[in-house]
Amino acid sequence: MSSQNQNQVLQICLSPELLHLYNVKDHLCVVIDIFRATSCMVAGLANGIQSIRPVAELEECKAWQEKGYVGAAERNAQLVEGFELDNSPFSYMNPKYKGKRVCATTTNGTLSISKVKNDAYKVIVGSFLNLGAVADFIRKEGRNVTLVCAGWKGTPCLEDTLFAGNLAYLCKDSFEMSGDSTQMGIRMFEQSQGKLLSYLEGAAHRKRLGSMGIEKDIEYCLTTDVYSIIPVLVEDELVLL
Amino acid sequence: MSSQNQNQVLQICLSPELLHLYNVKDHLCVVIDIFRATSCMVAGLANGIQSIRPVAELEECKAWQEKGYVGAAERNAQLVEGFELDNSPFSYMNPKYKGKRVCATTTNGTLSISKVKNDAYKVIVGSFLNLGAVADFIRKEGRNVTLVCAGWKGTPCLEDTLFAGNLAYLCKDSFEMSGDSTQMGIRMFEQSQGKLLSYLEGAAHRKRLGSMGIEKDIEYCLTTDVYSIIPVLVEDELVLL
Repeated sequence: MSSQNQNQVLQICLSPELLHLYNVKDHLCVVIDIFRATSCMVAGLANGIQSIRPVAELEECKAWQEKGYVGAAERNAQLVEGFELDNSPFSYMNPKYKGKRVCATTTNGTLSISKVKNDAYKVIVGSFLNLGAVADFIRKEGRNVTLVCAGWKGTPCLEDTLFAGNLAYLCKDSFEMSGDSTQMGIRMFEQSQGKLLSYLEGAAHRKRLGSMGIEKDIEYCLTTDVYSIIPVLVEDELVLL
Repeated sequence: MSSQNQNQVLQICLSPELLHLYNVKDHLCVVIDIFRATSCMVAGLANGIQSIRPVAELEECKAWQEKGYVGAAERNAQLVEGFELDNSPFSYMNPKYKGKRVCATTTNGTLSISKVKNDAYKVIVGSFLNLGAVADFIRKEGRNVTLVCAGWKGTPCLEDTLFAGNLAYLCKDSFEMSGDSTQMGIRMFEQSQGKLLSYLEGAAHRKRLGSMGIEKDIEYCLTTDVYSIIPVLVEDELVLL
């Protein structure tokens, strides 16, 4: 695609539990939690939420809620009592949150952000909803890139790996693809092309969510290129670039 | 296949760095390091080596060598000075080692064994060389099974994942397949079927080994069902079952 990145690498890390094995110093890091944290972040910011502050702990989220943030807290895919916003992209798209600041804690997604934010050149958020925009952005930045899959409680998950593979595939002419996890993502994306929903039939987290009656969320989170925005972490809050 | 395992699970762990996230208590654990530790172990024991003691450190390996063991030490795919046996299956098959006890330390393989041996019901060693025998064995044992991929310095690798996927695929009617990593292994195996060597063209460790002129080792390590043996860990040494 472009020659500016010819000396840059792109690598996929399949789980935040493996991040200590990867050099992400000065990398552009793309955090990925398809079901559903990063899909919610993209949908919310695209629909008018002013900023989203990802935090690790419920107590911290509660404290920000008391300061006027809308509190979003999910554990095991369910809304935690005492908080307002659940982990559905449709909830994040509710017009009543336009202009509001949100503080969000989720099972997997926020952990990945906190693990890379000190070393990264920049942290952005990816989902199928803004796939093409993210691909364009990382090609133009001319930086080494790490795609950080949030996984499920530390273990790799199918949907995040497939998204990372799809993103890597779209950028494969612009970077040196580094490491076997990157190959695995790209191969699985190629295998799933044109049949993403059925390919994910066996995915553990899809089953978890499906059994909770949120099939509509799943389908939305797998929809490609709805928005052309890039959420970027600035002073610990995700805002539109 | 059999109904005896119907309540048993089979799970793939893509790296020893993720083992703390998996319950392997009383599991039958299959340790996998295709390039080349577990392929060497299978080839060596099948060709008359009496036992192989996997150890983590060079110093420990040296101490056993001084007690009369044949010392096998590899770091970054190369023989360490002061030791006799390199990490090639053909070296392990040398008739001069018939009846000998070997002490082996390798970059990735021995770590996985030491991490599971205290919790596991039994630890065995898998490679393409004894794939069918391992599949038969784990189906008959009627235990929960964890396939432990050694990976490369903690990160998942393509060849171990493909082998684990192949083994899981062969046992898929006998166990409940647990977790997304298991799905990933099975899907990639299905994609690679009948073209294993070319599928691994892009694998990082294959490139590492290929550049060292040991293409012959690679091809041998990808050969299926040469031996019908099962190496099992008994009192810290691998012996034939």
